[in-house]
Amino acid sequence: MSEERHDGTRRSGGPRKAPEIFDATLDLLAEKGYEGLTVEGVAQRSGVNKTTIYRWWPSKGALLGAALTGARRLDVELPDTGSLQGDLEALLRTVVTLLTTPPGSDVAVSALGAVTHSPELAGHVRDFFADRIDRERPVFDRAVARGELAADADPMLLVDLLAGAAWLRVVLRQLPVEKDFVSRAVSTVLNGASITRR
Amino acid sequence: MSEERHDGTRRSGGPRKAPEIFDATLDLLAEKGYEGLTVEGVAQRSGVNKTTIYRWWPSKGALLGAALTGARRLDVELPDTGSLQGDLEALLRTVVTLLTTPPGSDVAVSALGAVTHSPELAGHVRDFFADRIDRERPVFDRAVARGELAADADPMLLVDLLAGAAWLRVVLRQLPVEKDFVSRAVSTVLNGASITRR
Repeated sequence: MSEERHDGTRRSGGPRKAPEIFDATLDLLAEKGYEGLTVEGVAQRSGVNKTTIYRWWPSKGALLGAALTGARRLDVELPDTGSLQGDLEALLRTVVTLLTTPPGSDVAVSALGAVTHSPELAGHVRDFFADRIDRERPVFDRAVARGELAADADPMLLVDLLAGAAWLRVVLRQLPVEKDFVSRAVSTVLNGASITRR
Repeated sequence: MSEERHDGTRRSGGPRKAPEIFDATLDLLAEKGYEGLTVEGVAQRSGVNKTTIYRWWPSKGALLGAALTGARRLDVELPDTGSLQGDLEALLRTVVTLLTTPPGSDVAVSALGAVTHSPELAGHVRDFFADRIDRERPVFDRAVARGELAADADPMLLVDLLAGAAWLRVVLRQLPVEKDFVSRAVSTVLNGASITRR
């Protein structure tokens, strides 16, 4: 809950219509790429005055960074299925859905492409992934508490193996994700592919 | 070995100076992005006549596609260390080096960014990864023969977990790859992270 200020904006997180501004930002990124994204375009589509947007975000890069971490459509509900396998499957399924279902998929791929064009945006993409791993930590803390995972396990490594596989398969290989991709990927990372385990 | 034709070009794989043409193509991609890549620029840098390049590759997309699969600097020597752990570590180390060491890293990231701008290039990136997994298959066949891997194991899943983790860590998170990242990633995929293995 952010507190309303006398000018109608909120103390943190952006103006009252931030959700509409973020949606318009991501829509325009997906449709026109980073080059075609403008604060004017976002203002027009969201029905929010351009000067209001600039008051909060001084550039389109800053606006896109805020949209990446603040947009509801990129939000992930943290799973709590009672097992690490179940939680990781739920998390990976969210990544696969995000990468394969428009408009989220267009946003994800466009944002990725734009990383190579804008150092400022690259910073926001970095923040997005840092924010995401922070939110995912409870999944691993609970698995340690349940005795499924060693206390010194590396959550980021596990997330990168799983989410990285989805990115590689979908964005670079441009191949369909098989029905059992998620369960097999998680099983492999948790139980190992080798039949001669050390 | 390709056979010399009467016009000084080779029957397959491109003209005699294909290596120089491919290097120039990747250099220009890294320096100027896909938009800034032109056949004229490649001709100038490689010292090969523009019409010779066009005779083999009718567009810059076709040329870049050929460079991605044909360039020596993107070539990977297939490891044969005697163990699956060793072979996968060698393969993953190559991916990490490619993604973190210029000029290969600039090429990799630029090519990725360009995927979102050019459907034709997206096709060539897809071919590059298809070609790569075909070349890597002997690593998995040997592991099955040694009894390290089940005959129905899925090589592409293992490669995507490992290489995907490297892409995510380096390109999206933009974080350094720890010294033991490669060995820990491979150990996790082969032996599993769970301490309550099924």
